[in-house]
Amino acid sequence: VPLDPGPIDLFLADVKTRVDRHLTRFFEQKREHAQSLSDPSRELVEAVFDFTMRGGKRTRPAILIAGHLAIDPSADLEPLLDACAGLELLQSYLLIHDDWMDQDDERRGGTTLHRLFADRLRDPHLGACIAVLAGDLGNAFAIELVARSATISKHSAAALEAFWTMQRDVVYGQALDLIAYRDVALIQRLKTGSYSVKGPLLVGAVLAGASAQQRAGLERYAEPAGLAFQVRDDILGVFGAPEKTGKPAGNDLRAGKRTLLIEEAESRLNEREREPLTAVLGKTDASESAVRAAMDLLDRSGTRAAVETRIEELDRQAQAALQAGGLSELGRTRLEQLARMFAYRDR
Amino acid sequence: VPLDPGPIDLFLADVKTRVDRHLTRFFEQKREHAQSLSDPSRELVEAVFDFTMRGGKRTRPAILIAGHLAIDPSADLEPLLDACAGLELLQSYLLIHDDWMDQDDERRGGTTLHRLFADRLRDPHLGACIAVLAGDLGNAFAIELVARSATISKHSAAALEAFWTMQRDVVYGQALDLIAYRDVALIQRLKTGSYSVKGPLLVGAVLAGASAQQRAGLERYAEPAGLAFQVRDDILGVFGAPEKTGKPAGNDLRAGKRTLLIEEAESRLNEREREPLTAVLGKTDASESAVRAAMDLLDRSGTRAAVETRIEELDRQAQAALQAGGLSELGRTRLEQLARMFAYRDR
Repeated sequence: VPLDPGPIDLFLADVKTRVDRHLTRFFEQKREHAQSLSDPSRELVEAVFDFTMRGGKRTRPAILIAGHLAIDPSADLEPLLDACAGLELLQSYLLIHDDWMDQDDERRGGTTLHRLFADRLRDPHLGACIAVLAGDLGNAFAIELVARSATISKHSAAALEAFWTMQRDVVYGQALDLIAYRDVALIQRLKTGSYSVKGPLLVGAVLAGASAQQRAGLERYAEPAGLAFQVRDDILGVFGAPEKTGKPAGNDLRAGKRTLLIEEAESRLNEREREPLTAVLGKTDASESAVRAAMDLLDRSGTRAAVETRIEELDRQAQAALQAGGLSELGRTRLEQLARMFAYRDR
Repeated sequence: VPLDPGPIDLFLADVKTRVDRHLTRFFEQKREHAQSLSDPSRELVEAVFDFTMRGGKRTRPAILIAGHLAIDPSADLEPLLDACAGLELLQSYLLIHDDWMDQDDERRGGTTLHRLFADRLRDPHLGACIAVLAGDLGNAFAIELVARSATISKHSAAALEAFWTMQRDVVYGQALDLIAYRDVALIQRLKTGSYSVKGPLLVGAVLAGASAQQRAGLERYAEPAGLAFQVRDDILGVFGAPEKTGKPAGNDLRAGKRTLLIEEAESRLNEREREPLTAVLGKTDASESAVRAAMDLLDRSGTRAAVETRIEELDRQAQAALQAGGLSELGRTRLEQLARMFAYRDR
């Protein structure tokens, strides 16, 4: 008997409440252990905790749980919370390192950890080192949590494999991103695709004992859903409302990020026509009005609309993939709702 | 029937051959996979491989195997090779990150990775980022390998716990080391102690199904054996023969490392007497003759001899711990030999 799944907002709110409570309990133990070592050890743990609790919609745990319900709709969710918390700590590790690599000052409405420690220790290099170690600690905690969920299940090898695959692919993706590698689609698949949708989904599904056929179906869903998530990010990075994204308008233009929007503009416009865009791309000091002109160009030239059409296509592909593959109705409904949310969110 | 264990050198050579062959095979697969992504991905894998194969005596795998044999002296060693290779990759990850943190130029007779990538990419920050990612990749590989050994055993939860405990403790230790925290013994326990002896030993022992009593016995051995290893490092860092340690004579003095040698000198000598030592400590440009004078002081004052006595005590404690605890004769012999080697090695 399929349960009435109810609206996605309630589901997400429920996941967030559970995961945040679980993270808080986990960190209480870690704080106590670290305090038994030294004050600076406790401060390191607190930095990872504060960063993790600062924000985050806990969408990865929601995908993990939806993937699990797609295989076993009546599963007890309690044993999954370790893995859910682990995903959030993997995310903290990656963001803390990325922020240092990109030399960003702000994240989730607060100071990035390498800046925070640089100020506290009055030494930028030392600050960077301690931030990298805070990230590494988050990663070690992530492994602890995922290992715990995995080893109480009957499917520990497959669950751990889904985890380390994600962890490895995101490293490959980040390295290519940093050197501005030409194949943007590959970077997106490795970096965002792997750990935004596919990895969490597979961890959840294999913990429920997904068959090869079920996994294949979920992977066919994860690829377009993850890509839609990323392409929406590309649009929000330029056109998003600053009060919702937490970043200034046109942020990705000034940062010079190679996104699908830029690739699309280059394929539609010749060099002369692209002039207003080229004038701001990668120019951190570009004026407000120059950024506005580049945004107008992306609109007028149909670039933005073409990218929106691409998102619609991706969403359709994701939805279609769910119809095959022997998934539960409850899980399918949740995954449909999540894909739609990824594709059409405004933050 | 206990086998004749034979000399430790043959055992170490055998472990090194097996582990190096295993690492080579593992990296062949990884190189092929990375090449299917992109050239820079393959280059990243090759950097981790070259760094890992550059040197390393594979003592951690030897301890893992000895710990396993202490519980099950007739065990097949083949299923342990994944975990052994994983320990070496954990080590690569830690050294690559440490080298960047310490801003060292050389490691294992070659250029450190952050310098290598900085030269190749003509950008020091980018070089540091790619090196940190190379370390992260080594860590992801380590988790893959340890997870594989763990999940084919009947003791996956305990084996993974031994692994992440080590990975976590070394991060706490490194953070305290960087801020020059006053409690040197705590740093040594967390940083070197955890992953030089105790962690590898416990991973090996729990994979063989060690009982709580056996684990307790091994931990009582690991603490002094690991500390002896570290204290010998402290002595070699000052008095070691450069052609054997790969580091210039008096290296740790110029680097200003807070070691047991320095702590002992401070407890034996007053401020005026310590003058030749203070003159070079942390002074990267200290002259050859000034360093020589500081070394003489450590000798003349009995500091070096007192630290040697401390090593003898630690070795005795380690050997005594092995007598209790229900360990096999073969494993006990190997662990005795290894502890002696750690305490009295010259490189």
